[in-house]
Amino acid sequence: MVKLAAREPTNTYFRDVMVKFDGHDSKDPFAYKWYQPNKKIQGKTMAEWLSMAVCYWHTFKGSGADPFGPIDVYNRPWGQGDDPMKVAENTMDAAFELFTKLGVDYWCFHDRDIAPEGDTVKQSKFNLQKMVDLADAYQRGTGKKNLWGTANLFSHPRYTHGAATNPDTAVIGYAACQVKAAIDATIQLGGRGYVFWGGREGYEALINTDMKKEREQLGAFLTMARDYGRSQGFKGKFYIEPKPREPSSHQYDYDAATCLAFLKEFGLEDDFELNLENNHATLAGHTFQHDVVTAANAGKLGSMDINRGDPTCGWDTDQFLTDPIEAALVLMPVMQQGGLSGGCNFDAKVRRGSTDLDDIFHAHIGSVDALAKGLLIADYLIREGTLSKPLVDRYASSQTGMGKKIAEGTTNFKDIEKWVMRRENGGKVLTLRSGRQELLENKLREAYDAVIRNAG
Amino acid sequence: MVKLAAREPTNTYFRDVMVKFDGHDSKDPFAYKWYQPNKKIQGKTMAEWLSMAVCYWHTFKGSGADPFGPIDVYNRPWGQGDDPMKVAENTMDAAFELFTKLGVDYWCFHDRDIAPEGDTVKQSKFNLQKMVDLADAYQRGTGKKNLWGTANLFSHPRYTHGAATNPDTAVIGYAACQVKAAIDATIQLGGRGYVFWGGREGYEALINTDMKKEREQLGAFLTMARDYGRSQGFKGKFYIEPKPREPSSHQYDYDAATCLAFLKEFGLEDDFELNLENNHATLAGHTFQHDVVTAANAGKLGSMDINRGDPTCGWDTDQFLTDPIEAALVLMPVMQQGGLSGGCNFDAKVRRGSTDLDDIFHAHIGSVDALAKGLLIADYLIREGTLSKPLVDRYASSQTGMGKKIAEGTTNFKDIEKWVMRRENGGKVLTLRSGRQELLENKLREAYDAVIRNAG
Amino acid sequence: MVKLAAREPTNTYFRDVMVKFDGHDSKDPFAYKWYQPNKKIQGKTMAEWLSMAVCYWHTFKGSGADPFGPIDVYNRPWGQGDDPMKVAENTMDAAFELFTKLGVDYWCFHDRDIAPEGDTVKQSKFNLQKMVDLADAYQRGTGKKNLWGTANLFSHPRYTHGAATNPDTAVIGYAACQVKAAIDATIQLGGRGYVFWGGREGYEALINTDMKKEREQLGAFLTMARDYGRSQGFKGKFYIEPKPREPSSHQYDYDAATCLAFLKEFGLEDDFELNLENNHATLAGHTFQHDVVTAANAGKLGSMDINRGDPTCGWDTDQFLTDPIEAALVLMPVMQQGGLSGGCNFDAKVRRGSTDLDDIFHAHIGSVDALAKGLLIADYLIREGTLSKPLVDRYASSQTGMGKKIAEGTTNFKDIEKWVMRRENGGKVLTLRSGRQELLENKLREAYDAVIRNAG
Amino acid sequence: MVKLAAREPTNTYFRDVMVKFDGHDSKDPFAYKWYQPNKKIQGKTMAEWLSMAVCYWHTFKGSGADPFGPIDVYNRPWGQGDDPMKVAENTMDAAFELFTKLGVDYWCFHDRDIAPEGDTVKQSKFNLQKMVDLADAYQRGTGKKNLWGTANLFSHPRYTHGAATNPDTAVIGYAACQVKAAIDATIQLGGRGYVFWGGREGYEALINTDMKKEREQLGAFLTMARDYGRSQGFKGKFYIEPKPREPSSHQYDYDAATCLAFLKEFGLEDDFELNLENNHATLAGHTFQHDVVTAANAGKLGSMDINRGDPTCGWDTDQFLTDPIEAALVLMPVMQQGGLSGGCNFDAKVRRGSTDLDDIFHAHIGSVDALAKGLLIADYLIREGTLSKPLVDRYASSQTGMGKKIAEGTTNFKDIEKWVMRRENGGKVLTLRSGRQELLENKLREAYDAVIRNAG
Repeated sequence: MVKLAAREPTNTYFRDVMVKFDGHDSKDPFAYKWYQPNKKIQGKTMAEWLSMAVCYWHTFKGSGADPFGPIDVYNRPWGQGDDPMKVAENTMDAAFELFTKLGVDYWCFHDRDIAPEGDTVKQSKFNLQKMVDLADAYQRGTGKKNLWGTANLFSHPRYTHGAATNPDTAVIGYAACQVKAAIDATIQLGGRGYVFWGGREGYEALINTDMKKEREQLGAFLTMARDYGRSQGFKGKFYIEPKPREPSSHQYDYDAATCLAFLKEFGLEDDFELNLENNHATLAGHTFQHDVVTAANAGKLGSMDINRGDPTCGWDTDQFLTDPIEAALVLMPVMQQGGLSGGCNFDAKVRRGSTDLDDIFHAHIGSVDALAKGLLIADYLIREGTLSKPLVDRYASSQTGMGKKIAEGTTNFKDIEKWVMRRENGGKVLTLRSGRQELLENKLREAYDAVIRNAG
Repeated sequence: MVKLAAREPTNTYFRDVMVKFDGHDSKDPFAYKWYQPNKKIQGKTMAEWLSMAVCYWHTFKGSGADPFGPIDVYNRPWGQGDDPMKVAENTMDAAFELFTKLGVDYWCFHDRDIAPEGDTVKQSKFNLQKMVDLADAYQRGTGKKNLWGTANLFSHPRYTHGAATNPDTAVIGYAACQVKAAIDATIQLGGRGYVFWGGREGYEALINTDMKKEREQLGAFLTMARDYGRSQGFKGKFYIEPKPREPSSHQYDYDAATCLAFLKEFGLEDDFELNLENNHATLAGHTFQHDVVTAANAGKLGSMDINRGDPTCGWDTDQFLTDPIEAALVLMPVMQQGGLSGGCNFDAKVRRGSTDLDDIFHAHIGSVDALAKGLLIADYLIREGTLSKPLVDRYASSQTGMGKKIAEGTTNFKDIEKWVMRRENGGKVLTLRSGRQELLENKLREAYDAVIRNAG
Repeated sequence: MVKLAAREPTNTYFRDVMVKFDGHDSKDPFAYKWYQPNKKIQGKTMAEWLSMAVCYWHTFKGSGADPFGPIDVYNRPWGQGDDPMKVAENTMDAAFELFTKLGVDYWCFHDRDIAPEGDTVKQSKFNLQKMVDLADAYQRGTGKKNLWGTANLFSHPRYTHGAATNPDTAVIGYAACQVKAAIDATIQLGGRGYVFWGGREGYEALINTDMKKEREQLGAFLTMARDYGRSQGFKGKFYIEPKPREPSSHQYDYDAATCLAFLKEFGLEDDFELNLENNHATLAGHTFQHDVVTAANAGKLGSMDINRGDPTCGWDTDQFLTDPIEAALVLMPVMQQGGLSGGCNFDAKVRRGSTDLDDIFHAHIGSVDALAKGLLIADYLIREGTLSKPLVDRYASSQTGMGKKIAEGTTNFKDIEKWVMRRENGGKVLTLRSGRQELLENKLREAYDAVIRNAG
Repeated sequence: MVKLAAREPTNTYFRDVMVKFDGHDSKDPFAYKWYQPNKKIQGKTMAEWLSMAVCYWHTFKGSGADPFGPIDVYNRPWGQGDDPMKVAENTMDAAFELFTKLGVDYWCFHDRDIAPEGDTVKQSKFNLQKMVDLADAYQRGTGKKNLWGTANLFSHPRYTHGAATNPDTAVIGYAACQVKAAIDATIQLGGRGYVFWGGREGYEALINTDMKKEREQLGAFLTMARDYGRSQGFKGKFYIEPKPREPSSHQYDYDAATCLAFLKEFGLEDDFELNLENNHATLAGHTFQHDVVTAANAGKLGSMDINRGDPTCGWDTDQFLTDPIEAALVLMPVMQQGGLSGGCNFDAKVRRGSTDLDDIFHAHIGSVDALAKGLLIADYLIREGTLSKPLVDRYASSQTGMGKKIAEGTTNFKDIEKWVMRRENGGKVLTLRSGRQELLENKLREAYDAVIRNAG
């Protein structure tokens, strides 16, 4: 670790622009229409509530490649050249330039995004350290902060059969070295959290897999990672990021519920929370809201990869979230729990066909504004009690008397039977109450319109 | 409870037939070609390993109705008439006649399948008791046994917003009465288990739902049910049957992993196991094998609804399982754990267009033979070590030395890093080993052919 | 046919309300905030562009039943009683009361929605005629109009194996009688169209189906239907409504493209257009917009079932459309082609748990306003050229010279090769142009906000 | 074109093995247990019926890369080196060595599989010609034949927005050059067909796409390709290969029905047939059998990519087909139409984790044997009339009298109504006949067992 002098952003790669709030009716495609970082809502600023992060992999390392077009489509100017470390430095210049121009406070990274792998573990550590020192300098010079770090344990061929879940323990050794270094990096950069996404921690086929053993290996690995991090003074949260499949046919971190169970099974629940991704939730057959509320109910809603998928596609399209209503529905539980230990990482990429640098701006601007509007709607819904008031009424019967006992299980079936029979004898008739779903759907849409119309 | 005289099966509804093993090359559509109930495999008979059960609902109460054709297509002879109790008796006559003619040992039921709901809880209990007494007599007269009982907590309009998870605790009262009576019935009939499938224990929309509260209510309800059953001397297992959705948009018992977590969260893991259904697993995005192995690894593989879905349809088609290889893959873990506390319930229905009584025979015969062949294949695979031997080899590195420590988490990241660096310094190169998936797939197919060809 | 005196709507079943426009900021749950029937847009009124229709089946005949709860949940007051014709009359009273109170101009029906099936074809015709006469009187008394009629060829058990595609031609006979009478009814009521949705025109399994023959039967049937209608003076359009599956495993009218091909194959393209449903398109793996544009490009976008599905469910949920952006994307091609020969049928039902009559209002109000907003957005997009202007630019190369020849196929591969080689020799480099998807997505969202904010 | 001397296969890359039939009970993992190329079935040999082809791209150019692991996992020995033409030659050596050792008669290729793209169109042509000359020599020396050729119009960045459907006609120019050269290559190699798979002929988003125009461009392109091929003496079939999506969100060649309509719309039906792929059909929501029968009914079943997908994954997994029953169901229509103009291309890849050269053998052997068994089953089903006899009976009513008129549309609705009413008056009751699906499913399984057991 070398403490370099604070470094200011350059004006090299991106158009001479600084994206700023320009009023709700602005038509400037390079301006925010809704995001006002310092606007206060329920005691926090927009920037604080959202803690938005640009992701390094898609935005700076993405090539536009896909399974049927493996060649780099984008040819980013910072990605040219034969010296991997020089490319890494140029890429970081571009990154902090963009962070600054977008006015987004946080960023996220994998170890291999910011520094090239070396021929040996030692060399890889060295490369990473060098780039972390540079990032550190840039953070001080720009005021940008790290949301979380992570290690890429899926791209290298050695991880083909898994990282922590690999049948070959020598591979797990390599994974441990990477995670150790990535935790160190995250600590140095003051990251709010450290994420595990286990793209290869699963199986392609059960017929050649010992699932029980592999899950135990994963539990052991995360435990050692946690212990290492804490031993080095890491104060942030560890996160698991669920995903049901892809690249594997099945991944052990299938969805929020599965991950919560895993954390409990292996005694990790004190240090770990979840980092939930919209597109991963939908691939698992849930709404994003479902997984977010599942985690929030368990006190484990830590951070979000706030992208979206394509409902007609069965794979991870990682598109930018643009629907303010969808944003509102996941930001409401965030506000209700007082915020996130992490934040909102975009984890989204411009489409393969969006080949210009400008497209990176358009994509982020659209999503930042969607989150801003979502936050305003969530605030409105909470203040008005649009959804919460009907809930109080709906569950009222469980607040007192026998209803309370039944709901809490402090009575028993014999007494309940007597109670029901007594009611029936008394002529009491059960009436079915409407769930009012359509009315609430209307009110949700009206909340959006009210926010939009009433904004100054 | 009245102890009626043992009752023998009639020959009223089904063709004059007794389905029996007729040799592997038989062309008789009303004979088994593979199922030999008394054939011994690894110390148990086929009948014991499979403990197959005919399900009452689809087979005797199914009408062939679907969302676009709500009218009874089948018009079963036992379902005619205006007196619901008389219809119930005729239906039970038909049921025990079929059980006998199929030579299948077990049956499964919901309370409302065997006895009509009355105007009051008391009347419903009375109806149920009367039919249970009759079933009891039939069991003694035919030697047929109850695999498990359950209560239908989803068909009646009162359960529209859930049973145990209903916002209105008065509804939960009704659910408790039903479960209490259904547990009593199961005890009287000597059922091996009692099942909870919570078709309405979920939500249609999150915007009008307090998911946290509803899950807690479900936990409380299952706890009271368990306590009641145990207090009445029930010695069998309780089962949760996972399903991701339908009728609800989301059900809390989404899949095996979610249910295992639920059981642990609410302290139910000593008394509950899982009853897994193929078609439910596939709707949740898993293979049946996946959910079976997940449960088996947790020591919770209790019983199976051994049907199949249609991969092109997004709903529960409940078709009869006919693929012996699919059967073998789920029967292998069953054999490896020494059997099921429950058994194999068909939970399948003939297609709407299969309107004849004969079709009921064809459907069951096809599935019984598929299970029989599946059992023979599973036995072959286990004896030959076809899949298990490669596993031993594949995970060998974790059996000793540093590999063992890594796999078990008894070392730490610093020591692992040193170990890896030392290996690299020593010139040790990591080699990627094939998972041999295609070879094992071939061997699986060959196992089937070997079993078929070598059968006497 | 009896010409009854014009009949005015009663005030019997629904709350004493008349749903009207109440300003964009109204909080009245029983008022429109956006739908102003007489507001002019591009030369037509909102009411004309949308030609919205309440559907009879879901709204008046829906019981809230589902595959796991076959019993009527709603118990509508107009559905009580033992005399089917009296129930039918009450239902029609309710229907025209609601049409009037909602201020929606059109309605749609199946023959069996409005009149009960009799014991014979003759009796069924008689029943239908009686109810059509009543509807006719109500139409004259209320000013409401019929959008389209259709025959229910899927609910009766006789249609289990299909209607026009049934292997038993006697069943086709019954289908023909129904369609004949339903066409007569549609003519009497002045319907703008007549729809064929073939829920059972497909198969459950290919192994017992002659798909070639069944499709030919369908072609013959539609031809006879067309000929009958025209012979009776029907001037409206015939429509096919595509759906991929459910109730069948596969339906021959899979999606828009499949239906267009079918029409051409059987020479029906002059008389038939498509009636497209959102939820059917999504079940077929398309967006609604895709199927709408597919039909529009072929000049066959005739009418729309403007509902929505649940992306997490694999079946037809028939929910009310509430997203104005989704509405805008399908109304834009409608405006571009100058309107629909049919209109916008809601084909949506309140949720099973929405058990009150009020819920019917909420559901329709939400969707009417979504369509109204959608129309305003579509108008904005067209006027601003938001999406069309970039298209002109994008495809400019095909407007002149060799580009035009290539696009139109008026050159050949040899000449093209020479042209490319010449360009390469001349040092011409191909540059990849961005598709600007994210920018356009932003502009789409901004169009919504502009419309909402700028509305008076 | 240079006519090189015939070239014999080397023994360089693959183990010293020649895969041959070794008896049905062989346990040799490198032997066929069912494929006997010269065994005669219904007048043709197994080899003739199946015309199996190894695909060049997956088998020799596949790297094991996936979206989360872009690096080459396999490191094939023939793929090493810096000179692309030398690599191409080594690869072709490996290919013909494998073809010979597998004893499979045909192979398939894209232009870019066998020869590297050059800096100019001219250079690319030169490279391709050189490799085609070598392939030609190898074909003569080994007796191996080309099933079909095609051009890769999706991997190069220039095709990001489509090839024939690109908004920029200059890109179409490049596509034309490639197809021209690939057709020439196919002619020289005596290919039985030429395939178009349009991976990028579709859209990512409709908001920036003129679908009508793009489809017309595609029609023009295929017409020019057809004309070019015929002008050069190509006598084989042109094929379109349907796929619903991936890499695009939507592809214009969605499924069999869509492609058949497209061919008719653009007047291509005389020269084009379909090349159907299992995994593509399932991604479109169909069974493989469905798309095969759809094409066969239209006289357009030309060739098959006989792989399989993973039902839990929403993308193209291109696995080897191993289920003989699935094979039988698509080979039955092939036999019924007297064979394929093309053949059975595997279009499948070993899993990323199957990193050894041996795995290539296991994968092909498993699938070859599955096809061989499938053929034996199809033969059995046809000879026994297992599925066809019930069909005759099922559709009997349409063979004579009014039934025939109804089925063929040679009557009219008025006469049909009279006929039905007359029958009703005569007391004729419609009886519902079972479709016997379960019985036929049993017979299908029994056919497999009979074939396996009775094989000598």
